[in-house]
Amino acid sequence: MILDKINSPIDLKKLNIEELNLLSDEMRELIVKKVDFTGGHLAPNLGILEATIAMHYVFNSPKDKFIFDVSHQCYPHKILTGRKEGFLKTEDYLKYTGYTAPEESEHDLFKVGHTSTSISLACGVAKARDLKNENYNVIALIGDGSLSGGEALEGLNFGAKLNSNFIIILNDNQMSIAQNYGGLYDNLKLLRDTKGKAENNFFKALGYDYCFIENGNNIKETIEKLEQIKDINHPIVVHLCTEKGHGLIQATQNKEKFHWIMPNTLNNQEPLALKEDYSSITVDYLLKKAKQDPTLAVINAATPGVFGFNSQVREKLANQYIDVAIAEEHATAMASAMAKNGAKPVFCVMSSFIQRAYDQLSQDLCLNSNPATILVYWGAITSADATHLTTFDIPLMSNIPNLVYLAPTNKEEYLRMLDWAVEQKEYSTAIRVPSVELKSTGVEDTTDYSILNKYKVTKEGEKVAILGLGNFYYLALELGDYLKEKLNIDATIINPRFITGVDNELMENLKKNHDIVVTLEDGELDGGFGEKIARYFGSSNMKVLNYGSFKEFSDREPIDKLYTKYRLTKELITEDIEKLL
Amino acid sequence: MILDKINSPIDLKKLNIEELNLLSDEMRELIVKKVDFTGGHLAPNLGILEATIAMHYVFNSPKDKFIFDVSHQCYPHKILTGRKEGFLKTEDYLKYTGYTAPEESEHDLFKVGHTSTSISLACGVAKARDLKNENYNVIALIGDGSLSGGEALEGLNFGAKLNSNFIIILNDNQMSIAQNYGGLYDNLKLLRDTKGKAENNFFKALGYDYCFIENGNNIKETIEKLEQIKDINHPIVVHLCTEKGHGLIQATQNKEKFHWIMPNTLNNQEPLALKEDYSSITVDYLLKKAKQDPTLAVINAATPGVFGFNSQVREKLANQYIDVAIAEEHATAMASAMAKNGAKPVFCVMSSFIQRAYDQLSQDLCLNSNPATILVYWGAITSADATHLTTFDIPLMSNIPNLVYLAPTNKEEYLRMLDWAVEQKEYSTAIRVPSVELKSTGVEDTTDYSILNKYKVTKEGEKVAILGLGNFYYLALELGDYLKEKLNIDATIINPRFITGVDNELMENLKKNHDIVVTLEDGELDGGFGEKIARYFGSSNMKVLNYGSFKEFSDREPIDKLYTKYRLTKELITEDIEKLL
Repeated sequence: MILDKINSPIDLKKLNIEELNLLSDEMRELIVKKVDFTGGHLAPNLGILEATIAMHYVFNSPKDKFIFDVSHQCYPHKILTGRKEGFLKTEDYLKYTGYTAPEESEHDLFKVGHTSTSISLACGVAKARDLKNENYNVIALIGDGSLSGGEALEGLNFGAKLNSNFIIILNDNQMSIAQNYGGLYDNLKLLRDTKGKAENNFFKALGYDYCFIENGNNIKETIEKLEQIKDINHPIVVHLCTEKGHGLIQATQNKEKFHWIMPNTLNNQEPLALKEDYSSITVDYLLKKAKQDPTLAVINAATPGVFGFNSQVREKLANQYIDVAIAEEHATAMASAMAKNGAKPVFCVMSSFIQRAYDQLSQDLCLNSNPATILVYWGAITSADATHLTTFDIPLMSNIPNLVYLAPTNKEEYLRMLDWAVEQKEYSTAIRVPSVELKSTGVEDTTDYSILNKYKVTKEGEKVAILGLGNFYYLALELGDYLKEKLNIDATIINPRFITGVDNELMENLKKNHDIVVTLEDGELDGGFGEKIARYFGSSNMKVLNYGSFKEFSDREPIDKLYTKYRLTKELITEDIEKLL
Repeated sequence: MILDKINSPIDLKKLNIEELNLLSDEMRELIVKKVDFTGGHLAPNLGILEATIAMHYVFNSPKDKFIFDVSHQCYPHKILTGRKEGFLKTEDYLKYTGYTAPEESEHDLFKVGHTSTSISLACGVAKARDLKNENYNVIALIGDGSLSGGEALEGLNFGAKLNSNFIIILNDNQMSIAQNYGGLYDNLKLLRDTKGKAENNFFKALGYDYCFIENGNNIKETIEKLEQIKDINHPIVVHLCTEKGHGLIQATQNKEKFHWIMPNTLNNQEPLALKEDYSSITVDYLLKKAKQDPTLAVINAATPGVFGFNSQVREKLANQYIDVAIAEEHATAMASAMAKNGAKPVFCVMSSFIQRAYDQLSQDLCLNSNPATILVYWGAITSADATHLTTFDIPLMSNIPNLVYLAPTNKEEYLRMLDWAVEQKEYSTAIRVPSVELKSTGVEDTTDYSILNKYKVTKEGEKVAILGLGNFYYLALELGDYLKEKLNIDATIINPRFITGVDNELMENLKKNHDIVVTLEDGELDGGFGEKIARYFGSSNMKVLNYGSFKEFSDREPIDKLYTKYRLTKELITEDIEKLL
């Protein structure tokens, strides 16, 4: 294998084009095999493979600095920069994260997993270089899909005026995760259609020099073009056209599906009809509602698959489906304005990505109390990469005034809350869609959620009251049973339902025959739900025990290990309670 | 006066051009007089005056929808939409806020004070209109300075593809608060220089139709051009060239100074040499440090005046001064990358605007623990507009892992922390620059702040311990004296210094001879500093009383009223303590 000879980018430079092409075939095979085994980002990495070889052939990393965006497309880079064993043997497959990580290699500058960051980061690297009077290439790699994000566009505006070497390689594979959206993409198409010659050029309008590479999957062509712009003394955008999923026919034929795959996707048949879950019942609700009400509109920011918005669903929703591209700030502001003007927007977003819209939540939405609905998915303590933690949405959102943030615990409750949120006109609302298995009571929920901050006591007891928020309501039930068994305590079980407020009346009542209040939340403790309860009881004799995740960027830690560390098990909590009794 | 006849925009339509011109003269005089009396945004409002008259003459608000950006330029609009009395008599001057406010008028759609929002909001208004099959004009007004913000650029990308009426009026006065920065502004200049005819057109590249108005301070010309595009059936950018400060020679000659003025600016001489304050000592430090170390760089996002970065300071800093334009996301990410690549970036930002960069703080900066320094100004409970509250930075920032957020209480402590933050290489740091009068101990601080979360006991006492964070350290001292006087308690006084962590050892020690811990923070209680202390003591017998602002968007409430509501006075806190004893 040619790859045997490649231990660092320097080794690449000894190869001729033919060998480089063979190398790319070898790497493709490894990537496909590995990703199909572990799951991960497939099509983006296949698309950028040849260009990565060309980049490392032409430039001299780590002296020259590559800054990856999202790092969904860093697998070929990892193989070429001393981490090939992570792709060679099954037992090493999980040795490296799927994202760039400075702790793994000097060729990785940043730990990155959210999108649209590379241009701004590269501006900083270039600016520091210039202040230090150093001399090397700074190269930001960014996908066309990532370019719609505010951070990328702010960086693009700034970078144009750097008076020194600054190279943006735009990997244009004509896709975000799904289709792109926005005026920018018409310009990219125009540029592709005219082989970069169109007069109307978004990048030139900003003052960038511009270079067009028609076939970014051709190593020779890409090397020749990059050689020409290496060591350039001003900002340039290299418009590199590639094919997403290149070299794997299943991926090129279904680019969206193969953007990120589950393990064992390649040889599997189409999945059987999926079990009902919180995503599917959301889709069902939205489809039904949209049919009844032409003013209902579903918004998402370029991640339709997460929510089950496949192409059939999108077609059915038609003009009531809005993909804003990667643009969570815009999505949030637009949802507010749609609500203001009488429509019923439902913005679906992942916990990790709502982080990108704090100011829009605060200023555009909640300050105006416009009745938009935000559905926050996947909020939970997980064993995810540090870049994609979903523990911060409660501290982020629940300290913003005016927002009603709800935490349902079962299907009926969720659907009732969802319908209430969509139909009411008083509050900006968000719902933390449960990320656990679908639970159903079989009994319709008829609660009026416009009576805010009313918690639900599902079991009356004494001594100990357990507040199990959202996902962790079921841990509260388990804990209650365990307390009975171990300490013969009949605990009160409470489903708070409202993340954003304290039920003062109920809390006051607890003082009568309870000594300990336990809060359980599936997210960060600091700034979260439990601390408000602790503050409430601060001046009383009530003891409060708060459970949730610590303030940390955990990184692919097994969930059991996390639960133990956070003492989030019925046994450990019972130990703590016993000490207080 | 012609204005006597104008009670709503309809009345405008009866006037001829000559009368409209006279009206603009009357309005200019009123705005100058009022703003010079109350303080406020002057030059932006003078620049947009004629265009506002033209807009209301041509369009039919409130059926047609105007969406203002920042709303720094809404004073003429307010005069024309039934709120002229707020500009006529001194006693009515404070009747209306300086920003658009739906509660004041049906002609205002949004309460807006942060920048770069109008395009996204207008997209939502237009989208709702289309879903409802309604028919009217939707017009976003945005200044050139605001266009660099990520939210605006995300909205611009989206809006281009709205398949219906969508009008963006770009008020190009060639200025942000200070100079603009970025490639975009070269394109605006090119368009101005070619009277809109340049081939390279940023807006056309995005797919917008484009209309150029050379003299946006000419009512007749502006009306004629707007008449042509009224009821247009697709997205268009109207490039309206205006003069900031138009009609007031002092303002046109010094546009930056007259962007926002203090009361009684017009007839005043240049201010005397300013007293030393936290801004001035920061500037002194940065100038000195920059001279010693060419890798130190000062970053701000288009608000240099706030930090004392006047033109002389900017000149002295030369290439070590970076104004990124309105682009807090970019500024934060770039600061992280500069630190990663060995420079010493110091990003100066107002508490209210760091909100725009949560994800960049979390992902680009803290996840990477790059040693950038962020100076957060003006964090405090104030009587500001609801749009510019500065109470949220602690909940926003202090729940992000890895960040070290410091709260100094005097000059020596601040300078020591600042120098530590700049020189150390381990942590991403932020400092909440005190917003109170400069206090000096006269004794150099020699603390090693790399020993994290070590609070400082400044007075040993018993029974009650008072944690006075940052600005409120002085309230802690007052409260201590008052407790002695009223209850004969010698309270322990603690200066926490670290917002982002609990001093466990000290807290544990307090249990020995204290019954009550009081926390005082000049910011929102929810998600803030005090709640962590409440959580810490939740399982103990210690009583905890937390003081800070409530979770609310207070709006121009007098500070004394706020302090009383929040019980933030020594008398009220002493009452609370007495009840617990």
